[in-house]
Amino acid sequence: MSLFTKIISGEIPSYKIAETEDFFAFLDINPNAPGHILCVPKQEVDKIFDLDEDIYTGLMQFSRKVAHAMREVMPCKRVGMSVIGLEVPHVHVHLIPLRDMEDIRFTSKVSLEETEMLEIAKKISESYNGLSQN
Amino acid sequence: MSLFTKIISGEIPSYKIAETEDFFAFLDINPNAPGHILCVPKQEVDKIFDLDEDIYTGLMQFSRKVAHAMREVMPCKRVGMSVIGLEVPHVHVHLIPLRDMEDIRFTSKVSLEETEMLEIAKKISESYNGLSQN
Repeated sequence: MSLFTKIISGEIPSYKIAETEDFFAFLDINPNAPGHILCVPKQEVDKIFDLDEDIYTGLMQFSRKVAHAMREVMPCKRVGMSVIGLEVPHVHVHLIPLRDMEDIRFTSKVSLEETEMLEIAKKISESYNGLSQN
Repeated sequence: MSLFTKIISGEIPSYKIAETEDFFAFLDINPNAPGHILCVPKQEVDKIFDLDEDIYTGLMQFSRKVAHAMREVMPCKRVGMSVIGLEVPHVHVHLIPLRDMEDIRFTSKVSLEETEMLEIAKKISESYNGLSQN
């Protein structure tokens, strides 16, 4: 079972942002910038371009909605997206509130207190739920 | 008119990979790794999450097909995907044949001869056309 499958099942706690039948979004605990989110399919597949077309498309649409929720409440120039996957073998889309290029290089990380992480997760999650009602 | 609109129209030459009614793919001339491709919508929009849902979804599906063509012919561990957009204000999806994390940091670049670029473009383009026929 992958680390992310354990997060989705709740075996490992996470700062949850959003969940649908097929997808799950939560804060990256080693963020490039405050509000850095991972969007994952519940299906445990290693590489994004190995996903079936419908799950791939669903993941991209879910990520778009999470990005819209993020940009409403996190100050940034734009939302960046990155899929790498050389570490955890379970597809994950990084969504990062970008201030500059450094925020998407994965070389400089920010350290946040648990209370800050909780507050950010609450803000983005509420923004996501607000968008879902429209 | 953006740099990419000029590339799409042919005003600026490019190493073209694939084209549909709404999308265009070509080699990045300052590649992170050999085979680094940009997939762009013909519609000139600055930020990816401002695209209408149908164009966004179409761009992601086009990028998936280009990634499938790429992985058939470019040696790599997997295909990485990144959307940043802090430089050219016209949506572009980076597809990069990854060997390691350095290939997606945008800090180390590779220099290729024109003949190598032409050969890579030909290989990926032929692979794309082959997939289209299936």
